[in-house]
Amino acid sequence: MYKKIEREDINYFINVVGNVNVSSDPEKLDIYSHDEVSGDKYKYLPELVVFSKNKEQISQIMKYCSENKIPITPRSAGTGLSGGAVPVMGGIVLSTEKMNKIVEFDEETLTITVEPGVIPDDIQKVVSEKGLLYAGDPCSSDASFIGGNVAENAGGNKVIKYGATGNSVMALEAVLPDGSIEWFGGKLVKDVTGYDLVSLIVGSEGTLCIVTKIILKLIPLSKYIVDLLVPFKTIEKAIEFVPKMIIESRIIPTSIEFMDNSSLVLTEKFLNSTLPYSQAGAHLIIELEGNDKETLADEYEKIGKYCIQNGALEVFVADNKTTRNRIWKARKSIAEAISSLYKDFCMEDVVVPINKIPELMSEVKIISQKNDLDCINFGHAGDGNIHVTFLNHSRSRKEWENIIDITLRELYEKTFSLGGTLSGEHGIGLKRRPYLPIVMSKEKIKIMKGIKKVFDPEGILNPGKIF
Amino acid sequence: MYKKIEREDINYFINVVGNVNVSSDPEKLDIYSHDEVSGDKYKYLPELVVFSKNKEQISQIMKYCSENKIPITPRSAGTGLSGGAVPVMGGIVLSTEKMNKIVEFDEETLTITVEPGVIPDDIQKVVSEKGLLYAGDPCSSDASFIGGNVAENAGGNKVIKYGATGNSVMALEAVLPDGSIEWFGGKLVKDVTGYDLVSLIVGSEGTLCIVTKIILKLIPLSKYIVDLLVPFKTIEKAIEFVPKMIIESRIIPTSIEFMDNSSLVLTEKFLNSTLPYSQAGAHLIIELEGNDKETLADEYEKIGKYCIQNGALEVFVADNKTTRNRIWKARKSIAEAISSLYKDFCMEDVVVPINKIPELMSEVKIISQKNDLDCINFGHAGDGNIHVTFLNHSRSRKEWENIIDITLRELYEKTFSLGGTLSGEHGIGLKRRPYLPIVMSKEKIKIMKGIKKVFDPEGILNPGKIF
Repeated sequence: MYKKIEREDINYFINVVGNVNVSSDPEKLDIYSHDEVSGDKYKYLPELVVFSKNKEQISQIMKYCSENKIPITPRSAGTGLSGGAVPVMGGIVLSTEKMNKIVEFDEETLTITVEPGVIPDDIQKVVSEKGLLYAGDPCSSDASFIGGNVAENAGGNKVIKYGATGNSVMALEAVLPDGSIEWFGGKLVKDVTGYDLVSLIVGSEGTLCIVTKIILKLIPLSKYIVDLLVPFKTIEKAIEFVPKMIIESRIIPTSIEFMDNSSLVLTEKFLNSTLPYSQAGAHLIIELEGNDKETLADEYEKIGKYCIQNGALEVFVADNKTTRNRIWKARKSIAEAISSLYKDFCMEDVVVPINKIPELMSEVKIISQKNDLDCINFGHAGDGNIHVTFLNHSRSRKEWENIIDITLRELYEKTFSLGGTLSGEHGIGLKRRPYLPIVMSKEKIKIMKGIKKVFDPEGILNPGKIF
Repeated sequence: MYKKIEREDINYFINVVGNVNVSSDPEKLDIYSHDEVSGDKYKYLPELVVFSKNKEQISQIMKYCSENKIPITPRSAGTGLSGGAVPVMGGIVLSTEKMNKIVEFDEETLTITVEPGVIPDDIQKVVSEKGLLYAGDPCSSDASFIGGNVAENAGGNKVIKYGATGNSVMALEAVLPDGSIEWFGGKLVKDVTGYDLVSLIVGSEGTLCIVTKIILKLIPLSKYIVDLLVPFKTIEKAIEFVPKMIIESRIIPTSIEFMDNSSLVLTEKFLNSTLPYSQAGAHLIIELEGNDKETLADEYEKIGKYCIQNGALEVFVADNKTTRNRIWKARKSIAEAISSLYKDFCMEDVVVPINKIPELMSEVKIISQKNDLDCINFGHAGDGNIHVTFLNHSRSRKEWENIIDITLRELYEKTFSLGGTLSGEHGIGLKRRPYLPIVMSKEKIKIMKGIKKVFDPEGILNPGKIF
């Protein structure tokens, strides 16, 4: 069992980080009791919120908590969607929001070193001025922290071309539960010196260590970027087109995003602006980039033609920043639109092989009709990751939670039978923990628990998550 | 301690794989007592060689060996350069060379599923016919097995653009030491459902499990490929140019390979053919690719001009298969040339941040002069991975081993001080095991040993490697 925090503990933390960085104020505790996942079910009050300024402070806190068996739940921006930053077992929420410095922009190695509290868009701003790109691009890039992106191995809109967050992570500085501070990896393009602990820590949802510095790989920024906004009459037509396009055109775009009509209507309502063909069954956003204007034009004309041949109603070409931003604003605001317009919703993160997306979508339709649930769908069609989202209009909280549990089990079983899994980019956290055994064998869960114990023998770090 | 293999054990293995797949013939044992690493120091006779045909056989063997504490050293093609496949503790060498089927080429998900005994070039042949590319390209692509490539996270010639082997691995089927058979990952572009065990297994040098199937990601094959062969007067000029080119041109080529004069002379002697400017201090091979001929031409002209401005003696453009193959044949044959022309040599695999290559090279010069050692240098300059290779002309075996030990410590300490590490693509294995603490903290080694114990509590799988 865990130790409840007492006066002496609070004094210790104050001693380490200073009075102003320790709070037990009920309002503060409430703010840090949840992330963006919907539902009181995923709300737990911490006993204390502690703000760290540097790795040395985290080291002292971790050592103390290990010795006293006090749970620590690390927290970035709290924009997570899995309850990963929720202090299920109480104890302290350790916020890294004050560790928000860009430590070093090293053009000579094409890397940037940042603290966990830096916002991805701020990284982009700095490096793009030098013609470079940080390839991570979560929809929350203007609000989430890079530390959280690393913890969840956030995906986003450029995964098909550049991979998820982890693909850009070259090295991590982290504090282990025993208080020791270690660097994992380096400014190295490749490294097979022992096990790949960097990739193990990326996506471990703050259960193995607390990351205090991140070295990110940078790549050359393409000179020209074009977005195609492609409405289709039906969601089926749009979805069937995605794998077909990738496979037959043999072009890997930077993005292939997807919004069904309900998603578009919601985000238009939320933003109070419209996109062409609002009534279309679904829209695709296809982003292409290159350093040669003509080649890029050839590419998007080829794909545009291909869209029309496959039932697109129209192909809108956005080659200037303003239009491109308008399109992406719509796509990136869907999650926010949902959470602002619905008290209860359940946003999923299932991922399947790209050729199984159409089948997944028709299964989703069957499941939501069967359970009489409103369902909207959007997401990263190019990598098979669809944010199936169920909305609660009129059910009582209790009815809602019951039907969602049944629905999720059906959705996950179907997803698994299609060769897919629970989470492509949001993580298991607290929300999907009960469902992990649907897609994962006892043996594998045992291995993960074993690894967790190697890093965190006392089990103080983000307890109650993943498994 | 481990159990010596007795008659009853042999009978068990015969029972599982059949008489023809179990051998204790001294000649066979000798063949399987070493890989391509130089020196009797890395030669250990197995008690038995067992050839498996499928995962079920491996499962029975692993279970039996765990229960009886018999060491298993998994082996692919034996082309490794770290002693990773050498049975240090005796026991059985388990060869997967008979598991060499391409299981499925799935164009719809852009994946190919192969057994561990498949040769990378054979994968390439199959997928290139459909306009696809498997991005892994080790210099041993015509001889090594994909299973070994995965075990060492092999790098090769396309790492700067496409990453090492692991970047193309989507999923693995593996047998754990307790005999259980598990799939890790799937045909999924992204997945954050629990810890990233796929990346943990990749590069684990056969110490965690035995991989029985591999699902590889495929990408569109570029229509046009051009190689530039660029001689420089001195090695310094060539090496200084590499990071400068990447950083200033903002073009990431597919390859930037490097051969100093001694390497070139050796490989020319071995192949009995010459490349232009044989007398040059060093040659770079810069490979570029694209789908548009003109764009590609613009790119290589830009880089060519850039080479000349930075002291290149000449820029030879190879845009047809014959010339390109001639160039790559020279580059890819260096290792083989060395091992065929020298009885004793020490081929290293250090990797540093790209901007530190020039400093590394001058340090290498100092170290080899100080220890009176002939040294040749070649490798993957684009990703900071240089195969510093020391040659023994006249020293006795004992003298040679002593001086090499001193030299390696100096080389590794320097490499580490430059932010680099021991191995970029060949692994630690047996050869670099004593030197791991130079670059890795006790804490991190403890974590790795802990992870090893989670997978292999009895310590039967490839014992005596890495740490």
